[in-house]
Amino acid sequence: MIPPIAVTLGDPAGIGPEIIGRCWEQREALGLPPFFGVGNRDSLAGVWKGPVCQIAHPEEVGVCSDALPLIEVADSEVVEPGKPTLIGARCALDALEIATGLTRSSAAGALVTGPVSKAQLQAIGFTHPGQTEFVGERCGVFAANLAMMLVGPTLRTVPVTIHIALADVPQRLTTELIVSRGRAAAKGLTRNFGIASPRLAVAGLNPHAGESGLLGREEIDVIAPAIAELQAEGIDAFGPLSADAMFHEHARKSYDAALCMYHDQALVPLKTLHFDEGVNLTLGLPIVRTAPDHGTAFDIAGKGIASHHAMAAAIRTAHACAVQRAID
Amino acid sequence: MIPPIAVTLGDPAGIGPEIIGRCWEQREALGLPPFFGVGNRDSLAGVWKGPVCQIAHPEEVGVCSDALPLIEVADSEVVEPGKPTLIGARCALDALEIATGLTRSSAAGALVTGPVSKAQLQAIGFTHPGQTEFVGERCGVFAANLAMMLVGPTLRTVPVTIHIALADVPQRLTTELIVSRGRAAAKGLTRNFGIASPRLAVAGLNPHAGESGLLGREEIDVIAPAIAELQAEGIDAFGPLSADAMFHEHARKSYDAALCMYHDQALVPLKTLHFDEGVNLTLGLPIVRTAPDHGTAFDIAGKGIASHHAMAAAIRTAHACAVQRAID
Repeated sequence: MIPPIAVTLGDPAGIGPEIIGRCWEQREALGLPPFFGVGNRDSLAGVWKGPVCQIAHPEEVGVCSDALPLIEVADSEVVEPGKPTLIGARCALDALEIATGLTRSSAAGALVTGPVSKAQLQAIGFTHPGQTEFVGERCGVFAANLAMMLVGPTLRTVPVTIHIALADVPQRLTTELIVSRGRAAAKGLTRNFGIASPRLAVAGLNPHAGESGLLGREEIDVIAPAIAELQAEGIDAFGPLSADAMFHEHARKSYDAALCMYHDQALVPLKTLHFDEGVNLTLGLPIVRTAPDHGTAFDIAGKGIASHHAMAAAIRTAHACAVQRAID
Repeated sequence: MIPPIAVTLGDPAGIGPEIIGRCWEQREALGLPPFFGVGNRDSLAGVWKGPVCQIAHPEEVGVCSDALPLIEVADSEVVEPGKPTLIGARCALDALEIATGLTRSSAAGALVTGPVSKAQLQAIGFTHPGQTEFVGERCGVFAANLAMMLVGPTLRTVPVTIHIALADVPQRLTTELIVSRGRAAAKGLTRNFGIASPRLAVAGLNPHAGESGLLGREEIDVIAPAIAELQAEGIDAFGPLSADAMFHEHARKSYDAALCMYHDQALVPLKTLHFDEGVNLTLGLPIVRTAPDHGTAFDIAGKGIASHHAMAAAIRTAHACAVQRAID
């Protein structure tokens, strides 16, 4: 039996609170496991009119059958939707800290994080690039050993480089880094999805995967050696493949995850196919952590039009991965 | 009334001959207009058993009601599928020359080119980067004024840079180049598709379109000024948009074409969605020229397993664009 899932509301001025409220309302139709929110109650009440049941510990979730269980993070001001403040950012960070701790201690079954504003967090002195690295640190895992997997109903992708300028991608791509991400992807597929011998399709960097060196040499000099190394470790990796021929319906059946060289190579196909259902799963952690694959969307916060489906998918995926890990 | 469409067989060792034969067989079911092939008869006969009707001029197409009309390019040897030769490359080039000339003179209604091997063509002294630039030269259009539009049933994309290494993309992207491609895209949408006021969605280069400069400055320094310039010319261009949020079903309805910064940004979403139906339409030519959005596929040539649907779409699109141009 997996304990309830901890779900942070994210930035109180973003869409996090309202989509989590909506997930709870529709929890049966969406097939969601027991979960509780962590965040500011007033910000939630400002955008979602459903009942809230304040709790102090995940064990109390079962008591709140008719209301969304919430571990409250106190806040000295009410944050308006679409208008992020430093106090709101502090509230988001406190929620993340609490939810991570509860998951680390196994009081929560998995961690799902609502969207935050990196700019706001940095303004209050947060020094991590994002929530992922913060969770990594709290779990004692060096950021370089973490990997991000994007999970959709018919596609999983793992970007080797992530939030860096496109111009910096070629120099940051090393055989070592690709091997490290490939290992994390293979291990993550086994651990979280129960795939005994995962198949990894490795993308090229250049058009037509470099066309034998005519359109760039990274495939020959950097990517192919990484594939050879992964294969030598017994991982079923293959490529480098032409990225534009990897993501159609037929091709997707030939692998369990695509190892992509940069952010948009991983995100464009995922979101083209599964815009409202993309889940970000962090690989390499001792706990299960997922997040919906979207941002705070300050421009539509509080309007009731944000889709809650990616958040629902993040909660469902977190639970399924926790169940899979408990089996092993 | 549009004259028949000229379709080159491409490299005789590639999949061009067989997919063109199959298009002719299924011309009624596929809704294809009258067309004729240009290429080597023996290579075609080696991979396709249907009837061929040799013609000397497109006017004779009407006479060949029960056979695929073909303007023959003589060849001194039979080329085996999957085994490209220099003689085969010469044959492909001769076919391209003939078909371009016939379309230029209006004897053919439009030009559709079968896939060729650039490496083979370069080995016989072909100095153009590809067939597109060759056709441009024959039409008196400077290569820099041509643009490539990828056309699928629910998406059109125009890459600003195309067949260059990813590492070279940032330095090659200039405001001037983006404006030039944007103009070509807008004009092409009006001319070929009859869209009076085309909407152009312009992609960013970096993850999250640079996130206000945090992940790269090209959006601010290069792309936004290009959008402003296009708008000043009366073109409905908007962006720069985060590439990963541009291509889902709902987003695609907000524009007539996406202007993309590099090859895979344009090709990955197109081929993820429409792998077997992608058409390459050359913008900026006085004639209509399309091509199926795939290569020679030497590895499967002659096996009868190559899909002919992109070729069929290329022929259909060429005809539709020629009809649209004739209306204006």
